[in-house]
Amino acid sequence: MKDNDLRLQDISEFTLIERLTEVLGPVGMGAGQGVIRGIGDDTAVLQNTPGTRLLASCDMMIEGRHFDLAYFSPRELGWKALAVNLSDIAAMGGRPRWAMVSLGLKPELKVTFVEEIYAGIAELASHFGVIIVGGDTCSSPERLVIDICILGEAYRSEVSYRSGASEGDLILVTGKLGSAAAGLALLRAGSKAEIGGTEELRLAHLKPMPRIREASLLIRSGLVGAMNDISDGLASELHEIAQASGCGARIWAERLPISQEAASLARRLGAEPQDWALYGGEDYELLLTIPGGKGSPLQARKLNRTLVKATGTTLSFIGRIIPDSGVVEIVQPNGEIEPLLPGGYDHFK
Amino acid sequence: MKDNDLRLQDISEFTLIERLTEVLGPVGMGAGQGVIRGIGDDTAVLQNTPGTRLLASCDMMIEGRHFDLAYFSPRELGWKALAVNLSDIAAMGGRPRWAMVSLGLKPELKVTFVEEIYAGIAELASHFGVIIVGGDTCSSPERLVIDICILGEAYRSEVSYRSGASEGDLILVTGKLGSAAAGLALLRAGSKAEIGGTEELRLAHLKPMPRIREASLLIRSGLVGAMNDISDGLASELHEIAQASGCGARIWAERLPISQEAASLARRLGAEPQDWALYGGEDYELLLTIPGGKGSPLQARKLNRTLVKATGTTLSFIGRIIPDSGVVEIVQPNGEIEPLLPGGYDHFK
Repeated sequence: MKDNDLRLQDISEFTLIERLTEVLGPVGMGAGQGVIRGIGDDTAVLQNTPGTRLLASCDMMIEGRHFDLAYFSPRELGWKALAVNLSDIAAMGGRPRWAMVSLGLKPELKVTFVEEIYAGIAELASHFGVIIVGGDTCSSPERLVIDICILGEAYRSEVSYRSGASEGDLILVTGKLGSAAAGLALLRAGSKAEIGGTEELRLAHLKPMPRIREASLLIRSGLVGAMNDISDGLASELHEIAQASGCGARIWAERLPISQEAASLARRLGAEPQDWALYGGEDYELLLTIPGGKGSPLQARKLNRTLVKATGTTLSFIGRIIPDSGVVEIVQPNGEIEPLLPGGYDHFK
Repeated sequence: MKDNDLRLQDISEFTLIERLTEVLGPVGMGAGQGVIRGIGDDTAVLQNTPGTRLLASCDMMIEGRHFDLAYFSPRELGWKALAVNLSDIAAMGGRPRWAMVSLGLKPELKVTFVEEIYAGIAELASHFGVIIVGGDTCSSPERLVIDICILGEAYRSEVSYRSGASEGDLILVTGKLGSAAAGLALLRAGSKAEIGGTEELRLAHLKPMPRIREASLLIRSGLVGAMNDISDGLASELHEIAQASGCGARIWAERLPISQEAASLARRLGAEPQDWALYGGEDYELLLTIPGGKGSPLQARKLNRTLVKATGTTLSFIGRIIPDSGVVEIVQPNGEIEPLLPGGYDHFK
């Protein structure tokens, strides 16, 4: 049998794990990266950095619910499954260190397909020095399931919670909003939406880049109050910060950083780019607050310049924290103030 | 709508998480248990015990592959999903501390069903002081998926690896072997296998008790060389220790600790109890080695007495580590020595 035709049901689980470990290469080793024992015993044995706190999170993705294999190459899927987890570490201001990968796989999947998922995981992991220290593989007859558990570290003073916003704070957001939703709309529309300059949108959906470096730089400024990553859409994340911090939020529609490409794609498809930005989700940008008061907009501009210079990512000032607990509002271009409902995706509807 | 009829699709994900957190009660809080922030932010924020190493592992279970809802109540399922993870921490000699629970759920499942899964998790977690610090819930249209990630701690000198066995070591095993396989056979056979005294077998399959306390006591004896938990059957675990330690193993069939109940059920069903013990898996007992040499069988008996006294769990001396790398053998009652193949369950076959 040609290697390319091998399916999971043709090899043993042991052989599969050996092959996947080989794909990981150095990303599966981690000598000197706090890994005393990685893949291959009952648990991983890890050495944390003294003085840090441990950050831990997991995100499960299920075929047909979180991703469509018509759009994703297995390599992109592996990348994204890790990216959404790294994004959670970024939201806390931490440094990602170790990950475990649980995969539910159809027995008839090609072995090379699974190796490609791992290649995507390894590609992104090596970007940030993350070591894959364990996981599990099992049979899932109908749908591919990926659950990644990420472990990170942060010094106590660096951890940023959702609850850190105060009245008057400026609300800032990294990068562009709505690009991931635009990318998904583009992929769904197929050839009829093909126009130039849309590769970035597609990649925003398929291969988001977690804002680890941006978060670290922002935290080091000492200005960050609350921080979240935008997984469920800006509206929903604003509500989470407002609720956790016991305050409200007001943003200006005109200040939402929507890319030219997303705006023109929306026009073409008869969609509303503002909805993509507010409710589309999966942008994995950072939403954060910094202290308000005199000179704070200037400070936000300075922070933007620093961030762009260091990482290429912009930082936009989009609104302010208001005292009214739980009230989240949007100021429309005509000056009208509307309530902004949490919206976002509900898994069970 | 009566609360008892509520289905996942009738409530928001937010409400579900609130309800599940309530079911957890103190098991979801963990003040003073190293939990700085548990459920409710982008990641959990945890405080490790200085001087310890972090143990991390995850185990994914998929309906119809790892468990059958015809046999499991949701509470038993929650218990077992956590138990298999705790067993991995036991195998390393560690103390389990925090867990994250990812659930893929059918939208038409009753909310109370999911709450019962959590009640089972909470029941076992509270036994060992484990705090549930996060997780994920999402829709899985065909099959229930549970992936639990467990985090534990151990002092450096306490960690027991698979690779710690040496020539001449005694091979010991806790509790009874084959009971979980017997329990599953019993459940599958239904009413035709109903005899007295089988509740223990059923529970061995449905609600295994991870050997955390036993492992801790054994480790403190300072005698443990290699240690594994028996998730895939004794034969397979012996091969893992042999391979990792660069040696071989020989066990005596007559010394396998098989319960009376399992033996008589096997006779009734025309099954071979030795096969259940060697290949059945899911016993979640500990397989370990202690130094051989003069007086070591006496030491094993002493260790057994200590363990029984403290935990009620027996410790049986079943074989010896031999020099021949990778050779695993069984001495049959008639004195014949046969090779013992790894066997065990292969997920993709």
